[in-house]
Amino acid sequence: MAENKTGVKKRLPLEGITVIDFSRVLSGPYCAMTLADLGARVIKIERVGTGDDTRAFGPFVDDESAYFMCFNRGKESIALDFKSPRDRELLDRLLDKADVVVENFRPGVMARLGYGAEQLARTHPHIVYASISGFGHTGPFKDLPGYDTVVQAMGGVMSLTGWPDTQPARVGTAFGDLGAALFAVIGILAGLYKRSRDAQGTHVDIAMLDCQAALMETAFARFDVEEKVPTRTGDAHPSLAPFESFAAGDGRFIIAAGNDQLFLLMADALGVPEVALDPLFLTNDLRVQNRGAMIEAIERVTRAASVSAWLDKLNEAGVPCAPINTIDKVIDHPQLLARNMFIQVQGKSERKVKTAGNPIKMNTSPDEDVTVVRRAPAVDEHREAILAELMASSGAYTSQADSESGDDELERSTGLAA
Amino acid sequence: MAENKTGVKKRLPLEGITVIDFSRVLSGPYCAMTLADLGARVIKIERVGTGDDTRAFGPFVDDESAYFMCFNRGKESIALDFKSPRDRELLDRLLDKADVVVENFRPGVMARLGYGAEQLARTHPHIVYASISGFGHTGPFKDLPGYDTVVQAMGGVMSLTGWPDTQPARVGTAFGDLGAALFAVIGILAGLYKRSRDAQGTHVDIAMLDCQAALMETAFARFDVEEKVPTRTGDAHPSLAPFESFAAGDGRFIIAAGNDQLFLLMADALGVPEVALDPLFLTNDLRVQNRGAMIEAIERVTRAASVSAWLDKLNEAGVPCAPINTIDKVIDHPQLLARNMFIQVQGKSERKVKTAGNPIKMNTSPDEDVTVVRRAPAVDEHREAILAELMASSGAYTSQADSESGDDELERSTGLAA
Repeated sequence: MAENKTGVKKRLPLEGITVIDFSRVLSGPYCAMTLADLGARVIKIERVGTGDDTRAFGPFVDDESAYFMCFNRGKESIALDFKSPRDRELLDRLLDKADVVVENFRPGVMARLGYGAEQLARTHPHIVYASISGFGHTGPFKDLPGYDTVVQAMGGVMSLTGWPDTQPARVGTAFGDLGAALFAVIGILAGLYKRSRDAQGTHVDIAMLDCQAALMETAFARFDVEEKVPTRTGDAHPSLAPFESFAAGDGRFIIAAGNDQLFLLMADALGVPEVALDPLFLTNDLRVQNRGAMIEAIERVTRAASVSAWLDKLNEAGVPCAPINTIDKVIDHPQLLARNMFIQVQGKSERKVKTAGNPIKMNTSPDEDVTVVRRAPAVDEHREAILAELMASSGAYTSQADSESGDDELERSTGLAA
Repeated sequence: MAENKTGVKKRLPLEGITVIDFSRVLSGPYCAMTLADLGARVIKIERVGTGDDTRAFGPFVDDESAYFMCFNRGKESIALDFKSPRDRELLDRLLDKADVVVENFRPGVMARLGYGAEQLARTHPHIVYASISGFGHTGPFKDLPGYDTVVQAMGGVMSLTGWPDTQPARVGTAFGDLGAALFAVIGILAGLYKRSRDAQGTHVDIAMLDCQAALMETAFARFDVEEKVPTRTGDAHPSLAPFESFAAGDGRFIIAAGNDQLFLLMADALGVPEVALDPLFLTNDLRVQNRGAMIEAIERVTRAASVSAWLDKLNEAGVPCAPINTIDKVIDHPQLLARNMFIQVQGKSERKVKTAGNPIKMNTSPDEDVTVVRRAPAVDEHREAILAELMASSGAYTSQADSESGDDELERSTGLAA
């Protein structure tokens, strides 16, 4: 909890919430990371020895995965062997303290381990249990493996991404995983809110493919109404113009002036007010129809000066525009820095890794900037601390533990399993 | 509320929550639509006469915008003139009933209207107030207009999307708007959860550009660690192989076999087990380095049969794979249909429009399939019903209304403003 200048106490909205995170790779870890950024305590359950698969994904910092560090900052780690009765007992005790479970195994895996949503609904009915999978826990495809590129291809976004004269392109970030992660966070928070009113948990079943469909904007409606299959439009918006890149003397930049008033302002700012009066370009619909001619008319002017000169002129006139930034520019972007959008993550070594921070800015929450260093855990790093904590509170749990083992034995045996 | 086979009462998690939605176009409406899908009542405040800008966006169904219908299903509409004291009084009464406000004007606009977050924090401290804007309410860019393509270009995803030998491409859906919409929903739900504990509202300030940065996966870490600027990789994953499309006899399809075990299974399924033993392809890192040779070795086989034959073989072997579906295929996809991922929306005319439904499947919520028809409102369609409701409950509000006007006068005057 922090206090700001005006004396308002700031605290994160999920303080006090405990998440047991069985997930690995990207969608589940990103979901749990978002909950951690909102103040939840996240205890990551890892495979004994190697831990999360992404610990083997590059790039590496002193043999440690920067990929893993990005999405597991601020979490605790404990490695559990599901075949060990002692580890299972420890897990049962952790679940007694849990508000949320996140997992992204294929449907059926958690149930076979004994920790499926239906099983926990009986033993821990207060838990909000989120499953993320490629295709969800129902339907004919439920047992197939789903990966980011698989659902990007199957769900349609690839068919809409890239230039018309090239093969479909993948969205240049893990749109399949991250879309599902965000809808999972929404389902979990909706479940927690519901629980605050009816004291009951819920099972949230998120399919990456479903989320792709939900994020296709108007593509289905356009097909349904126009009976034409939407396709790739390069960098242009399919139904707004100008809403694409134009050539300057030293590169390309975006003008997004999709309504008539902005088009008028744009033509003025470019010094060719007559372009806005051309009967070919009078309305957005006309400009979409005559896009080629419009691009020609605009580039006849824009080629004569630099990207930065045009951006200055257009910004001054209030016309939406942008450079096409590469990642080295984005990481130093003054607006993102002013918004505290970068933080640093540190693993075992001294070397820190820069990554994006939390975009959910709440006036009631403290915010973290790039000077903040968040820890990413080593496999099983928090075993001792978690055991000590469970033992300290064991009085509250012995009745539920259903075991003959005392606390000493629990400590000894789970220690062996690591 | 519905009841399922097992007798469990199903209700949506946000039942009882009222959202006052000042937003227009895409990010705000999509955010409020998601809240409506989760059970909230959404009252959309529209501009008198023309309403939401997207009512003029194609495609059209009998002169009605299918674009508007997609994202405003299930909402109520009331048109308000902010210059009319009577309409302002009506709005004040609506805000008394509200739990959430959503707006996506440029920073400062709502404050000038008298309904900024700081103003409402004084008069309605219980409200969770979400602002979505291009660049957020702080920082040097805060007053610039932000549109989808602007933030896609500025935030880096365009530089990563498309083929290496073409210009950067736009993500083929409104990734800038929709990413911000989802983070706004997360902020609102976190705020509601927090309010359930401390009875205080909050201001959630979401910037489209921030959300772009948050969704760049490991791009910043890769630049930070490797000091190389990440760039476009077509349909391939930058650090996994195979994780891209391959040519069959009649088209292309995706194989996503990014770990060694899956690569072994893949080689077997393609009938060329020796490929998995090639020293060039033994590990994922080697396959990324020798991607060209790997593609050649795989396509030497895959060109000999059809996409569907290969997908059958690979699916049977448990190797992640996919066709690259166009939208006409996605809208009829058996898994999406089995998951109730399509619904229909209807405006004034008989013609319904198919669009994606709610991907947040909760076992405690009723689910809607393509047989369900949701209404999208006409401008100001719900004025009378809302007025009648406010009058019925006016006893509770007269002390706060701060007005000499009786209910009759309220009705008359706000009627005039429409």
